[in-house]
Amino acid sequence: MEDLNSYMQNVGIKARAAALALGRAGTDTKNKALLAIAGVLDQRRQALAEANELDLEHGRNNGLEAALLDRLELTPARIDGMIEGLEQVAALPDPVGEITDMNYRPSGIQVGKMRVPLGVVGIIYESRPNVTVEAASLCLKSGNATILRGGSEAIHSNQAIAACIASALETVGLPVEAVQVIETTDRAAVGHLVTMEEYVDVIVPRGGKGLIERISAEARVPVIKHLHGVCHVYIDDEADLDKAHNIALNAKTHRYGVCNAMETLLVAAGVADKVLPGLARVYAEKGVEMRGCDRARVLIEGAGLDCQAATEADWHEEYLAPVLAIRVVDDVDGAMDHLNRYSSRHTEAIVTENYSTGRRFINEVDSSSVMINASTRFADGFEYGLGAEIGISTDKIHARGPVGLEGLTSQKYIVLGDGHIRE
Amino acid sequence: MEDLNSYMQNVGIKARAAALALGRAGTDTKNKALLAIAGVLDQRRQALAEANELDLEHGRNNGLEAALLDRLELTPARIDGMIEGLEQVAALPDPVGEITDMNYRPSGIQVGKMRVPLGVVGIIYESRPNVTVEAASLCLKSGNATILRGGSEAIHSNQAIAACIASALETVGLPVEAVQVIETTDRAAVGHLVTMEEYVDVIVPRGGKGLIERISAEARVPVIKHLHGVCHVYIDDEADLDKAHNIALNAKTHRYGVCNAMETLLVAAGVADKVLPGLARVYAEKGVEMRGCDRARVLIEGAGLDCQAATEADWHEEYLAPVLAIRVVDDVDGAMDHLNRYSSRHTEAIVTENYSTGRRFINEVDSSSVMINASTRFADGFEYGLGAEIGISTDKIHARGPVGLEGLTSQKYIVLGDGHIRE
Repeated sequence: MEDLNSYMQNVGIKARAAALALGRAGTDTKNKALLAIAGVLDQRRQALAEANELDLEHGRNNGLEAALLDRLELTPARIDGMIEGLEQVAALPDPVGEITDMNYRPSGIQVGKMRVPLGVVGIIYESRPNVTVEAASLCLKSGNATILRGGSEAIHSNQAIAACIASALETVGLPVEAVQVIETTDRAAVGHLVTMEEYVDVIVPRGGKGLIERISAEARVPVIKHLHGVCHVYIDDEADLDKAHNIALNAKTHRYGVCNAMETLLVAAGVADKVLPGLARVYAEKGVEMRGCDRARVLIEGAGLDCQAATEADWHEEYLAPVLAIRVVDDVDGAMDHLNRYSSRHTEAIVTENYSTGRRFINEVDSSSVMINASTRFADGFEYGLGAEIGISTDKIHARGPVGLEGLTSQKYIVLGDGHIRE
Repeated sequence: MEDLNSYMQNVGIKARAAALALGRAGTDTKNKALLAIAGVLDQRRQALAEANELDLEHGRNNGLEAALLDRLELTPARIDGMIEGLEQVAALPDPVGEITDMNYRPSGIQVGKMRVPLGVVGIIYESRPNVTVEAASLCLKSGNATILRGGSEAIHSNQAIAACIASALETVGLPVEAVQVIETTDRAAVGHLVTMEEYVDVIVPRGGKGLIERISAEARVPVIKHLHGVCHVYIDDEADLDKAHNIALNAKTHRYGVCNAMETLLVAAGVADKVLPGLARVYAEKGVEMRGCDRARVLIEGAGLDCQAATEADWHEEYLAPVLAIRVVDDVDGAMDHLNRYSSRHTEAIVTENYSTGRRFINEVDSSSVMINASTRFADGFEYGLGAEIGISTDKIHARGPVGLEGLTSQKYIVLGDGHIRE
């Protein structure tokens, strides 16, 4: 390979040119491209499996841990999943070109906004090769060119998928550079990608907190960040205790390794003795390790169950595991004080029947999703009706919460006149 | 002063705490604060004039150029202007708390979005002290705490204005730290401000391209950038030539030093001989220096007028002065090729009566404002109905084009359930 700098510059230049064509492509062409990719993936299952086997073998030889090997594997079911995903994205409405807020102004001009692609989106992700298709499809549908940088352990799989995408783009007459997968595993390529402001409009990193922090520290291009989800459920003293029980259980135990799982349970002192022992019993049955404040421990240990003392670090922790921090607070103000100090501002829920308390919580809690009487597990793009999501943003700038097709677009002002000049 | 780092950290901590209170403040309280500031400014005209005189004297002694001295001066009319501005912002609708897109989902939860303040906004600006009031008022109305860093040459004026704001905030019961003016003229304070990610949510620099580039290069906090306005008018070969004449004249000569003034005129070859000589005559009368491509020069010089040869640098230039680059292009594709290469993506207008050409231009030109048959001079917050603007963004991320109160807010998802859990 030629030197890395000129290789990456060249990728950028080609992406910028492709973005122009893609931004002008009609909905029908983009949908045809998505379905064509699905078709080629289906035809080339054998080639995909072979490329994937190279990565798996390399991974096994290099002692890649079992969980990563599992994520790396392109099983027939995962290929089916990629194909279904493409069909779903093709079926979503096209966000590009939507005109809103078109109004006449006193000067006589008409002013409104038109939704447009961002341009070039850089996606940096870890081992799962199916992300290659998922990210490419969302960018394609939203009219953006993509530069994809997958994990080095998936390089053969990603190249095979890239070849399918390129072939499909060609059949519908779109530039093959609309989706580029970086061909080198050189880590320095990421450093180039996140600083090529001229060619890249936004970076979406998908992976662990470490990856995202590293990228954010280096980036000159704006980053849509998903740092971490330290999500809370607060059971108010006017909660319906059945709802509280079900929501607290669902938020923690529906799935452990997801960003919208509850990590800390807050309970109002007035109902703690009624709700905590019963909840703790079910957590214990499900193998959830509990770490509580003093007041919580008295109640949980009083019910004959184990509960370690929570340390300051526990209130900050995103366990992503069957571990739960539990704190008894005086009331909704105590809960909101805790959130202001420890929440990662991802998703918080209150369980209450009191109108004013619920209204305060919704208005005052500063997280990307705030819920009343619902499980934090609902915080994702499909449940919110976005159709698909490229990530969940914990930033406040540009996109916040689940980021779907709209988060990959911007709006420009359009002005229609009839020879109007400024007086 | 204590050491700069701890001073700035302390400013950040106080801003974050004030943002919490301000985010919860009702519309009525915020409006009362705005009107109270207007009242105190009116009462303290004498003190403001004295503080301003210190800055002016210092500026004169240090050989500050006349234009900068003029911008620095707080005349009675400018104080009136600040007061009127405050009254106008008080009269604008409050963007905070607006709930949109509230819909039931198949799971039974209701999902929508609520508009919320960004939190803490850092504003960095140059010599005009009235920006202190303008920026503070927009941030206050949108529920954000502000950290203001004005030019060192205006430090006494800014401190006097800050004292008025603090006094007014106190009378309505809002924390005085909701608006903080940095008390040191140490340039390193800016470096701290733009890297305090924990305490500052967004930076809005207001000033020349140099200031903005310097800040963007250093910043870790997101920056709403307004780099430059190389705006274009394209006269199509199916233009109404009267409209073309008026728009091309207005876009250039209505005001020269503004970002939405036309800097390059593009004319289709088919009408160049009909429209350029007449236009050039008026430009020459108004003292506008013309720099043209070869085809333009033949026509302009043929009409007995001066037109220098434009160089490559001219197509990139934001003159902000009575200078105009002129290029004859073959057609709308030639115009759009020029825009793709040279536009700063601020504002472009086409003059045409052809429906399809206009539609292509609106769809395909990638600038923050795109216009048909209207002068580029309309691209500002007041003309678009935003009521006020904190700047014009040439970015695509978060806010694009004129940035009003909405650009100083974000949206969070809100979810209402009745005990809903994820199945």
